[in-house]
Amino acid sequence: MKPLFAEPELLSPDLLPKGYEFASTACGLKANGRPDLALITSDTPAVAAGVFTRNRVKAAPVLVSQEHLRVAGGIRAIIANSGNANCATGASGLATSRATTAAVARELGCSPEEVLVCSTGVIGVPLEVGKILGAIPRLAQDGIRSTDAAARVARAMMTTDTRPKWSAASFRIGGRQANVLGFAKGAGMIHPQMATMLAFVVTDAALARPVAQSVLSGVARRTFNSITVDGDTSTNDTLLLLANGASGCPALRADGTEYRRFVKALESVCQELALAIVTDGEGATRVAEIEVRGAPSDVAAEQVARTIATSPLVKTALAGGDPNWGRILAAAGRAPLAKGASFDPARVDIRLAGTIVCRRGEAHPFDENAVHEKLLERHVPVVIDLKSGQGRATIWTCDLTTEYVHINADYRS
Amino acid sequence: MKPLFAEPELLSPDLLPKGYEFASTACGLKANGRPDLALITSDTPAVAAGVFTRNRVKAAPVLVSQEHLRVAGGIRAIIANSGNANCATGASGLATSRATTAAVARELGCSPEEVLVCSTGVIGVPLEVGKILGAIPRLAQDGIRSTDAAARVARAMMTTDTRPKWSAASFRIGGRQANVLGFAKGAGMIHPQMATMLAFVVTDAALARPVAQSVLSGVARRTFNSITVDGDTSTNDTLLLLANGASGCPALRADGTEYRRFVKALESVCQELALAIVTDGEGATRVAEIEVRGAPSDVAAEQVARTIATSPLVKTALAGGDPNWGRILAAAGRAPLAKGASFDPARVDIRLAGTIVCRRGEAHPFDENAVHEKLLERHVPVVIDLKSGQGRATIWTCDLTTEYVHINADYRS
Repeated sequence: MKPLFAEPELLSPDLLPKGYEFASTACGLKANGRPDLALITSDTPAVAAGVFTRNRVKAAPVLVSQEHLRVAGGIRAIIANSGNANCATGASGLATSRATTAAVARELGCSPEEVLVCSTGVIGVPLEVGKILGAIPRLAQDGIRSTDAAARVARAMMTTDTRPKWSAASFRIGGRQANVLGFAKGAGMIHPQMATMLAFVVTDAALARPVAQSVLSGVARRTFNSITVDGDTSTNDTLLLLANGASGCPALRADGTEYRRFVKALESVCQELALAIVTDGEGATRVAEIEVRGAPSDVAAEQVARTIATSPLVKTALAGGDPNWGRILAAAGRAPLAKGASFDPARVDIRLAGTIVCRRGEAHPFDENAVHEKLLERHVPVVIDLKSGQGRATIWTCDLTTEYVHINADYRS
Repeated sequence: MKPLFAEPELLSPDLLPKGYEFASTACGLKANGRPDLALITSDTPAVAAGVFTRNRVKAAPVLVSQEHLRVAGGIRAIIANSGNANCATGASGLATSRATTAAVARELGCSPEEVLVCSTGVIGVPLEVGKILGAIPRLAQDGIRSTDAAARVARAMMTTDTRPKWSAASFRIGGRQANVLGFAKGAGMIHPQMATMLAFVVTDAALARPVAQSVLSGVARRTFNSITVDGDTSTNDTLLLLANGASGCPALRADGTEYRRFVKALESVCQELALAIVTDGEGATRVAEIEVRGAPSDVAAEQVARTIATSPLVKTALAGGDPNWGRILAAAGRAPLAKGASFDPARVDIRLAGTIVCRRGEAHPFDENAVHEKLLERHVPVVIDLKSGQGRATIWTCDLTTEYVHINADYRS
């Protein structure tokens, strides 16, 4: 398993992509006065790609950003607020998101379509757009290219997150270095179907637009779409990629060594951000890596892994460090599989934190105390081998604790 | 909504079906010495029907009872233990269930196929069948027809249940009274796909076998299959119906007034037991009735209702009495619907405890404190009108509290 989330202070200045500036502020959307508005700008129009929620309830900023990605030739900025999701807010919510992109465009001297907008926070409460519009002129002037400013962007995106989340990687093309820097937020309502709550990745590599979209979709499936906190798919899930080419590297094509280096850097950044989200899952104390092998297909493996990863009984057992593999087997048994894809419960092996506890669907003797101790670590690998094919999938999930209930029973009232 | 679960002491002796006896004991499967073995016998072979879990991991007693129902001409007894599910126990688990039915058959002087067997408790631990076999001779002698003995059967079925669950109803056929008495257990791993954890209904009405099975399947769908505690479908779900005809009433046929009276009595008993289970959901403090109207079809309505009813964010908001309807709308938006079945989020109305809080997909002003107070009651009706058709469904769910986490994080270790 990859090492968990690295703290932001570890970011080295020479990993900052060229040609981007960062700014953030507290415009008053969060009652506690914390930062709640962030702006990322590209000096030149960047090639952009996006992956958005599959929830049929889509927030206004999702609809506006999707439209702008379709029509704009390039993207100059991403503006994001926390404290309010601007979702289930009807026509006035759409007007709010449009006014926000127009205000940013005015400051940058570009068209509103060149600005993407994201919101995160409570659903169904009208967004006080005046606070955002009032803050934009100053925000646009404040933008600088520094690791500190980038760290503050990650903070301004937080809602119930306990830590800001970013990740960086670099790779070389034609003798030059290109960088990839990603930001994410998310701790609850995490069960991404196409992306996660909010994540932005900027690179100074040069990419063609179709390449950008296809690589982002593939990476999203293996990273953000492979985590879950509570099985609840958000209405605002958005993953955006900007590529402005400011590194001076030659444009990447969808093949060759250099392309593979870029995909590897992008996937490393997205993977780290995705793990940072599940590690910071609301109330979570540990993360389980649910790996399903030997499934009839990769899709079936993913369905089994996802059912296990969202089972409240599995997640509470994980909270207690309880080697209760019967709950894992029962969850696998109820996984919805496509017609024809099945498995024989009497062949299943289960390994908890490296110890085999179930062999051929039955108890296999193990040292309960020793496994209990290993289950109390922050990282718990769980391997389920269905012995029914070659399909594989891995889903990361966190434990379900009393703290999750406290956070969510007290969110508004 | 129906009144919640009535306590067992309210059962009147003249509601006891004729021709059945009840016995229970503590045979030592439960470490705390509580009753863990129950026997229901019919004086004569009863017509029987069963509805079982759809989990592809099926416990040994489920497989044995399914087989016996297929081959037996009539059923003389149901033997049920708590404290161990006899699931994921392989060939020796099957031998255990068979030995149990054989031991009961020996005492009753019938064939093993005339005995049904059920188990509930922890998964994956070999069942100490010696304890059960040792207790059976005495258990078979102890059987009597009394409300006290029936109440003790309900107690011996309990695992994490805090209350025994039974329900009774009567109806008249051709001038005679026939009775229906049902027992159930279940508090966690509750998301029945065909039945619930364990429920037994006995009647002294006379029924043909095909009638018994079809009426039971229909009633199960509207009652036990319409509740959820945690979305986890058990490996042992079993609902059994015995009809021995001891009332002396003429046999019921699948039409006519008297048949409808029977279905009504059976449904009333199953409904009350199902609500008793969800009310006693692990850690639950209240029950929400999630009613979806205006869906493209009844199936779509059920999928939306089920997605809302299993959302951890909806269930924690319910725990806090938080009128956070945005979480309900977001859950509806991610419900998996069949191709072609959809709805427009911008038409959805949501009513919490009688108060409209969302109209046409947007916030509708309401008195937050007043609704909060109503959400703290034990029964919370929630109505979601999709305005996209005539489909309807109702699912009952309980809140997700810190106590649920305590119960399940501490179950074994």
